[in-house]
Amino acid sequence: MHFTSEQRLDDGVLEREFTLGEIPGILWTPGSASVPAPLILLGHPPLGLRKMYPRLVARARHSAAEGFATATIELPGSGDRPRWPAGEQARADLRRAMEAGAPVSDEIVDALILPLVDKAVPEWQAVLDALLSLPEIGGPVGYSGGVISLGIRLAVVEPRISAAVLFAGSFVPRAMFEEARQVTIPLHVLLQWDDEGNDRQAALDLFDAFGSKEKSLHANMGGHTGVPQFAGDAAAQFLTLHLK
Amino acid sequence: MHFTSEQRLDDGVLEREFTLGEIPGILWTPGSASVPAPLILLGHPPLGLRKMYPRLVARARHSAAEGFATATIELPGSGDRPRWPAGEQARADLRRAMEAGAPVSDEIVDALILPLVDKAVPEWQAVLDALLSLPEIGGPVGYSGGVISLGIRLAVVEPRISAAVLFAGSFVPRAMFEEARQVTIPLHVLLQWDDEGNDRQAALDLFDAFGSKEKSLHANMGGHTGVPQFAGDAAAQFLTLHLK
Repeated sequence: MHFTSEQRLDDGVLEREFTLGEIPGILWTPGSASVPAPLILLGHPPLGLRKMYPRLVARARHSAAEGFATATIELPGSGDRPRWPAGEQARADLRRAMEAGAPVSDEIVDALILPLVDKAVPEWQAVLDALLSLPEIGGPVGYSGGVISLGIRLAVVEPRISAAVLFAGSFVPRAMFEEARQVTIPLHVLLQWDDEGNDRQAALDLFDAFGSKEKSLHANMGGHTGVPQFAGDAAAQFLTLHLK
Repeated sequence: MHFTSEQRLDDGVLEREFTLGEIPGILWTPGSASVPAPLILLGHPPLGLRKMYPRLVARARHSAAEGFATATIELPGSGDRPRWPAGEQARADLRRAMEAGAPVSDEIVDALILPLVDKAVPEWQAVLDALLSLPEIGGPVGYSGGVISLGIRLAVVEPRISAAVLFAGSFVPRAMFEEARQVTIPLHVLLQWDDEGNDRQAALDLFDAFGSKEKSLHANMGGHTGVPQFAGDAAAQFLTLHLK
């Protein structure tokens, strides 16, 4: 892990950009951490880190105030990272279907999501290895937000993640419902009740499928990007409760 | 309103039993209130105040620590209050249907719930008049818990109630779905995902029907009486946010 830039934000939070092999990312650590900090892996939609930065840094600052380190990575195929042809094809097919008001087929959803999960999860795990080797980062580790299928896979394969906030706001391949049954960590699931293009019933079915004994669904009014402040705060509280 | 008993609990909370005409109830006020307190009307299932007392006093103490006064009443037909024949018949029909594993008909649900709502809502309003005339109680006023149809009707007809926590855990007459559309105050709706005998889909439909712009659904694992501590705390936080 190479740190490529470093700046101290006005609230004392240390923001460092890094690369791990071909994976770029950002790490935020609290200004005054006397002991190794617990860690939140911060997911986001595949729109590129640069575009997502304002929302990500706001959440990282909030978490730093609670004593957490926060890290995020550029997803494969996003930002300046190389695309893959099947992924580009799936995005084009999705756009076409949505513009035509046509249902989005299982094939499109699978092509869009499954390769992303297959590529991104081992990257997150490699980044997690590197982060936990830093003296300023301890544990436990939580995951929050982003592409829900990615959060599901991580929760299943990565035993170091002990709680997750998942956002039911993206297409979910059928195969992920089976993986959801294997999730056992505490979950806090956010759903925007009027999310355009998100299938509410599928989100409820997915919540039902999770194997976790402790899981709660938090549905709020508004569209995809309209998660209310109080709902974000409650999700942060959930992580604080489980990781500290 | 006549106070019939008064005791100071160990945390300083003043507990007073009262009657208003034929309606018995309990009022809890914070030990050290320098200004008129905001008020929570505390609903509960029609099982009798005596049976519900341990849970109710626990919630009232919690609210008092946040500066709230809390009041509850014995529902018509519960505790020592007179039954009415159609209500007794509906309860017997319900028991029979449930013991037989048969679906509970709309007729049974209507007979069970609608008269209770019709009788209890004006009683709550009369009690509210009396409570707000006490110098130690100000406002705003919230409603929390109990028979959800009763909470819906109160939210529609009583403009002094400015936020409500509703528990989607009882049978809902079809007519109440229409009333739900008329609710406009902020709502925090609790749902137990595995509530025995509660129709999950009906609860989700009811949540969808509420006319409130600000409403959130909080679904948790477990049966009817298994609302987790953190979910109760979050509901209390919602009231604090909206009433203070």
